[in-house]
Amino acid sequence: MNKEIDSFTQHISQQFNEELESLRTRLLEMGGLVEKQVHDALTALIEADGKLAEHVRENDRVINDMERLIDADCMRILARRQPAASDLRLVVNISKIIVDLERIGDEASKIARRALQLIEEGQAPRGYVECRHIGYHVHKMVQQSLDSFARYDSQQALEVAREDKVVDREYKTAMREMVTYMMEDPRSISRVLNILWVLRSLERVGDHARNVGEHVIHMVEGTNVRHIGLTRMAEEVEKNLQEQNAGE
Amino acid sequence: MNKEIDSFTQHISQQFNEELESLRTRLLEMGGLVEKQVHDALTALIEADGKLAEHVRENDRVINDMERLIDADCMRILARRQPAASDLRLVVNISKIIVDLERIGDEASKIARRALQLIEEGQAPRGYVECRHIGYHVHKMVQQSLDSFARYDSQQALEVAREDKVVDREYKTAMREMVTYMMEDPRSISRVLNILWVLRSLERVGDHARNVGEHVIHMVEGTNVRHIGLTRMAEEVEKNLQEQNAGE
Repeated sequence: MNKEIDSFTQHISQQFNEELESLRTRLLEMGGLVEKQVHDALTALIEADGKLAEHVRENDRVINDMERLIDADCMRILARRQPAASDLRLVVNISKIIVDLERIGDEASKIARRALQLIEEGQAPRGYVECRHIGYHVHKMVQQSLDSFARYDSQQALEVAREDKVVDREYKTAMREMVTYMMEDPRSISRVLNILWVLRSLERVGDHARNVGEHVIHMVEGTNVRHIGLTRMAEEVEKNLQEQNAGE
Repeated sequence: MNKEIDSFTQHISQQFNEELESLRTRLLEMGGLVEKQVHDALTALIEADGKLAEHVRENDRVINDMERLIDADCMRILARRQPAASDLRLVVNISKIIVDLERIGDEASKIARRALQLIEEGQAPRGYVECRHIGYHVHKMVQQSLDSFARYDSQQALEVAREDKVVDREYKTAMREMVTYMMEDPRSISRVLNILWVLRSLERVGDHARNVGEHVIHMVEGTNVRHIGLTRMAEEVEKNLQEQNAGE
């Protein structure tokens, strides 16, 4: 009898593990698509590729659907499996990460819209170098945040938060330059404004990548590091790392 | 013996209800503060009240703390009580609503920052009427979304989503006007840009209020209405309403 119960429990627990694994895989799939959307939106902007921009706009629906489906699965697992401890943190943080990923997708779609507008109005006289530079940076942050999720690596997740500070500085400098251009050449205002919105979207992508990193830290370390600042965030990650090393 | 177990179960369930009730109350407290922040940020902008703007900036930390604390309680309840059905939906949606409320708080803080910058640089020649108008509108949406949460009223939550469409139109019109002003008077570019960012923040407040409404609908109706569009959203709410009426 005990053996039967054991095998039953094992069966359930194996099924549960498979469900969690599938959830993780699908989050990473969604993340891969979101990352590609950011990349494609930037390429569409810089190469004035209208077809690619349209493609990004259409793909946004796929990301929205992914968010809905993964979220529904999180709810189902919470209701049926009533996970505890680290499993619970995994599910809850996945349900939060997908919200940030979906928003990154939104920003990619907005960038694609600006790319289309610039194709229609004619290229902006300036700003593409800045977009490429900051775009490359935040795209890497998105990759890193997904990587930190895949590997349960809170050190890497912390890196993403650090990078966000750098992006914020780059963003402010670029914004000031754009304002100067507009004042020098008022006829370009409308076109440069499109670049301004792109820069803004890129900065938001960085913020959301940082959020993903924070959720990963919560998932791995069990500490909520939102709003506590970089220094304390680093302390939390470091502390847990030392405890782990001491325990080994 | 049965009686004892009954009383024990009743005790647990009463405690659980109290926990859920406290969660609801605290969400509404947080919502009240966020609503006030939006209101104060707008007043600071329109009346060029630097002291009030500083106050809004400082208060943002209180909102961040509230988010952290409520989120921690949601996690605790999920782990210890393992709620099911409508209780689960309540807890999960509260943990999502507070994210949107915190973001509304962020936008209020950004508006206050722009207000301070305008006080420093000198008032913008135009745009205050538009800010007041759209600001009034999104402030009402935040109120309504919180109201719909307090009353479990998915009809009212649906109204908020409808209002968001109107705000988006008002926002686009105002943006076009601001761009025209900038082209007519390039010396005002930097100041009018501050107004542009305020308008953008206000539009985002509307989006987040809409998100809150969507979470309320999910909480009340059990249907995830994110990304499905207004028409289908209305159908879902209507359908459930009819079923309720038929059941009475």
